[in-house]
Amino acid sequence: MIDDLAERLRSGDRRALARAITLVESTRADHRDMATALLSALAGATESAVRLGISGTPGVGKSTFIEAFGLNLLAHGHRVAVLAIDPSSSRGGGSILGDKTRMAELSRADGAFIRPSPSGGSLGGIARRTREVMLLCAAAGYDVVIIETVGVGQSEYAVRDLVDMFVLLVQPAGGDELQGIKRGIIEIAEMIVVNKADGDLAPAAAHAQADYRSALSMLRPAANGWKTPVLQCSSTLGAGIDDIRDAVFAFRDAMIGNDHYFRRRADQAIAWMWAEVNEALRDRLTADAGVAQRLPGLEAAVAAGSMTPSAAAQDLLSRFFARTTADSAGRDGMRP
Amino acid sequence: MIDDLAERLRSGDRRALARAITLVESTRADHRDMATALLSALAGATESAVRLGISGTPGVGKSTFIEAFGLNLLAHGHRVAVLAIDPSSSRGGGSILGDKTRMAELSRADGAFIRPSPSGGSLGGIARRTREVMLLCAAAGYDVVIIETVGVGQSEYAVRDLVDMFVLLVQPAGGDELQGIKRGIIEIAEMIVVNKADGDLAPAAAHAQADYRSALSMLRPAANGWKTPVLQCSSTLGAGIDDIRDAVFAFRDAMIGNDHYFRRRADQAIAWMWAEVNEALRDRLTADAGVAQRLPGLEAAVAAGSMTPSAAAQDLLSRFFARTTADSAGRDGMRP
Repeated sequence: MIDDLAERLRSGDRRALARAITLVESTRADHRDMATALLSALAGATESAVRLGISGTPGVGKSTFIEAFGLNLLAHGHRVAVLAIDPSSSRGGGSILGDKTRMAELSRADGAFIRPSPSGGSLGGIARRTREVMLLCAAAGYDVVIIETVGVGQSEYAVRDLVDMFVLLVQPAGGDELQGIKRGIIEIAEMIVVNKADGDLAPAAAHAQADYRSALSMLRPAANGWKTPVLQCSSTLGAGIDDIRDAVFAFRDAMIGNDHYFRRRADQAIAWMWAEVNEALRDRLTADAGVAQRLPGLEAAVAAGSMTPSAAAQDLLSRFFARTTADSAGRDGMRP
Repeated sequence: MIDDLAERLRSGDRRALARAITLVESTRADHRDMATALLSALAGATESAVRLGISGTPGVGKSTFIEAFGLNLLAHGHRVAVLAIDPSSSRGGGSILGDKTRMAELSRADGAFIRPSPSGGSLGGIARRTREVMLLCAAAGYDVVIIETVGVGQSEYAVRDLVDMFVLLVQPAGGDELQGIKRGIIEIAEMIVVNKADGDLAPAAAHAQADYRSALSMLRPAANGWKTPVLQCSSTLGAGIDDIRDAVFAFRDAMIGNDHYFRRRADQAIAWMWAEVNEALRDRLTADAGVAQRLPGLEAAVAAGSMTPSAAAQDLLSRFFARTTADSAGRDGMRP
């Protein structure tokens, strides 16, 4: 059954893709096992798609941009999947103001696949399964997979660790107004796009472009061997979109050329594994009854300075491991 | 004995302080217990000192600056402790090119205490015990405790999580030359000091000051309610040092005024506790024989894309907890 699903998915069957995503996002143990088997069956088919992160503060025009950019990609023979991470939803099937409404034309297009992705909380606001859904889309023949985030938190850092290229969409505004952007986000961008470069905002867009270029000149490049471009575009007029598309593929070619492309992906996968391990260890620790009972008192003592952090850490760990082993011994019937 | 040591330390006895530091840095279990008792006895006596992080790339003149700044503080009635974190040494008692040579006058002064602090590896390059040594110095009456790091890695982030105020020392150079500074460091600085603002370098220092101010205008302030100042100084001539001292205490007063000062310390202590917990969990996991045997194969499979990070994480965790509980049951003699 998994082999059949994998084959249909690889042939580009949208219903198979939707079915696979449901499996991957499910928390049921049997679904998780099937999802793991499916992803193994698809290994190798997920490599060729370009993985793009697109982020920007609310109001910057992300939907309009992704619609214009996505349609441009389709017109140039690409197939596009968009995973929109909705920080307001922690369940599957959520939606940012209805993605079909947000990207009306793109969502109706044959070569496009748009799906909201629930935000998962701990791994920097990215659903644990977003990475796997991205791989499913790639296996289904979408050769550009876009992960869209609202730039209001730590999620940009997490997204950057998922994608090949991180694109920051910014407002046509300069100087003090740029302060609304989270610290550090400028630095991790591999491309900055000043949106709304049209009409009355055209002068402000040019100003913003110059300001961001100046800011970037003070910083190390986000990717080795790549000068982060600052481009302008008008999503409503479609101006500048070709240059952005060119920059994406120029980035990919440069990174493949200097061997960073697949190494970055391998590093990302290993980092993801450790993030899951660390999170699971921490979850088990905090779920432990003895730890949970002790934790508030320890945190208060540490905050008040009456107990050192090290002593509190030791206390938590000894409770955790004492209980873990005792519980297990009890379960295994090894107690007298 | 601990009470006696605590009392002598609080009276400012340097030999008692050195003895206490040795206890805190020791890895012997009985020493650790004594260190914990000592720190508990000193709780409350550690609060009033200002904790300063000072960082900058090699060659920026950190030693000369700290010597000039420290002597200025002494002249204004303060007592100064300097903990120099040496990334090249992972053992206690190491030294960065001999601290006595580096800060000749300061190291001979009565009100100053200079000590190299070994770098500990995992917690961002900061020795686990640096935080506790800092508290010992504070309890011994040093009302300004400086933690000095070489700005070549992640250690700045770790230091910032230890101190009240993070100061970045920079070269008199602008534009492209600023790229040598690690991305993100500018953003976490609560004060930037352009050193060597004298002689031939004076024009370049003024230029750098303007460039850093412009860069900062694009970023959110590192601390709420505080505009990060960019100051110039000449450590050799002593020019500008008064302004830097004033800025340190203005920062402290502003942060106490808006309630961030002690809250930041409480948050830092709790974060430190969790960092130790996470590190210990990870250490136990990777030290596990079953995990160690399996890990290289899993990492290779994840890097190659033939196994998902989630499946590999599950594999590691199930091995770890199976073994932990089995080992413990075996040790406890509960096996048939």
